[in-house]
Amino acid sequence: MPKSGQPISIIPLTGIPEIKPNDDIVKITLEAAIDSGLSIDMGDVLVFAQKIISKAENRIVDLNRVSPSPYAHTLSKEVSKDPRLIEVILSETTKIIKMDQRKPEKGRLIVETRGGVISANAGVDASNVSGGDMVTLLPIDSDKSAERLAEGFKEKLGIDVAIIITDTVGRPWRDGLVDIAIGCSGIRALKDYRGEADSKGFELNATVMAVADEIASAAGLLMEKANSVPVILIKGYKYETGGKGAKELIRNPEDDLFR
Amino acid sequence: MPKSGQPISIIPLTGIPEIKPNDDIVKITLEAAIDSGLSIDMGDVLVFAQKIISKAENRIVDLNRVSPSPYAHTLSKEVSKDPRLIEVILSETTKIIKMDQRKPEKGRLIVETRGGVISANAGVDASNVSGGDMVTLLPIDSDKSAERLAEGFKEKLGIDVAIIITDTVGRPWRDGLVDIAIGCSGIRALKDYRGEADSKGFELNATVMAVADEIASAAGLLMEKANSVPVILIKGYKYETGGKGAKELIRNPEDDLFR
Repeated sequence: MPKSGQPISIIPLTGIPEIKPNDDIVKITLEAAIDSGLSIDMGDVLVFAQKIISKAENRIVDLNRVSPSPYAHTLSKEVSKDPRLIEVILSETTKIIKMDQRKPEKGRLIVETRGGVISANAGVDASNVSGGDMVTLLPIDSDKSAERLAEGFKEKLGIDVAIIITDTVGRPWRDGLVDIAIGCSGIRALKDYRGEADSKGFELNATVMAVADEIASAAGLLMEKANSVPVILIKGYKYETGGKGAKELIRNPEDDLFR
Repeated sequence: MPKSGQPISIIPLTGIPEIKPNDDIVKITLEAAIDSGLSIDMGDVLVFAQKIISKAENRIVDLNRVSPSPYAHTLSKEVSKDPRLIEVILSETTKIIKMDQRKPEKGRLIVETRGGVISANAGVDASNVSGGDMVTLLPIDSDKSAERLAEGFKEKLGIDVAIIITDTVGRPWRDGLVDIAIGCSGIRALKDYRGEADSKGFELNATVMAVADEIASAAGLLMEKANSVPVILIKGYKYETGGKGAKELIRNPEDDLFR
């Protein structure tokens, strides 16, 4: 054991099959772990890509069954997207934050979702879903979804693990997507260093870290987009428990300079 | 060896002393690694907190030697900050993006820095610097700083390692800070999945991941703000080489809906 302090291991859980509505994610995860020779231990963090949670929760919409409203038709022309997709996005939206009409060939609709997360197209996603016109929606309440998973692992294994559900989002100012936490349970999403002294003894005056987002990004490194590794096991990270889920990561609009 | 696929290890490099101007970061890192019983191998990623790079590059300003301009005085009242600090921030700024005057007790100045990164106070930071009125500035060119470090390790060890220099930033819409890559060398900051098929055979149409930012966030989990772990060693992450450094992560202002 080197003297270097406790390392963190980020372990891809391979062998997760394609998830279908009502699949038992806890059972499937445990089976994949056993097949891989991995143990899930007290204090581990399990990170799940939103996509498989949405599928298991049957948050799938067939665009062929969607009748776009007149407004969806209008908007679809402005951002050059399928009006049925726009209709679905609007049904998941509480507020349109920004609309990109400058480049119709890659129109963007940045919205606030029901859960409070701000993302392109409200997280409605057409990739990796069976059938040509199927799209997935975000879980209705990702913190609740995470809680149910944590309870499932507790029931099956008798131990507490932390659960994080992630989504892949773009950001203002920076190119490339990153993974963020849209749901969590058993882990405090924010870590507050305020009041602690820095190594020179000065008080750290503004350091509250979004650790759940940093874990999501760490896991994202191994959630190969093309190869389906939707579950990541993290060992060795000492987190705080409690908190109110990933909704703590959503800035109060009154404190937000950018909406 | 489990069948689970290659895990990533995030290892905190403890024992880095307080860095002073002109210190040799490569030498200090290698000594800390030896003391910790850690080897640095081909393909590893070394992640450095901006603070120690800035100190080694003597990017330190004594506020007692700063004469604020009339504009700095005006601005200092609007955001309730020391006019000398405002003067330093302005000297690092190419554009003011947003100014928060609503809550003077925690005024914020969000600016575009010389390097193109958008952050609060241009990355000018008063914590963890010796002396009461000393602040650090970001490295002049963090990609170049990363390149010099990569060359240093190549010279001393004869191998290629990837270097990422990180800073801790706030974000629109989300609470809590995360670490991002402001400089890198030997690793492509963006990973492009476009053209690859997802697991269902559909082409992934918009997936370019900001892997350097995701690595920065992963490392940030162990860069304990209060305990000074400014260097993190990452093993097992398969990255692409090449690219143009962390500047690839800065969105072209014309493509940016938020400035």
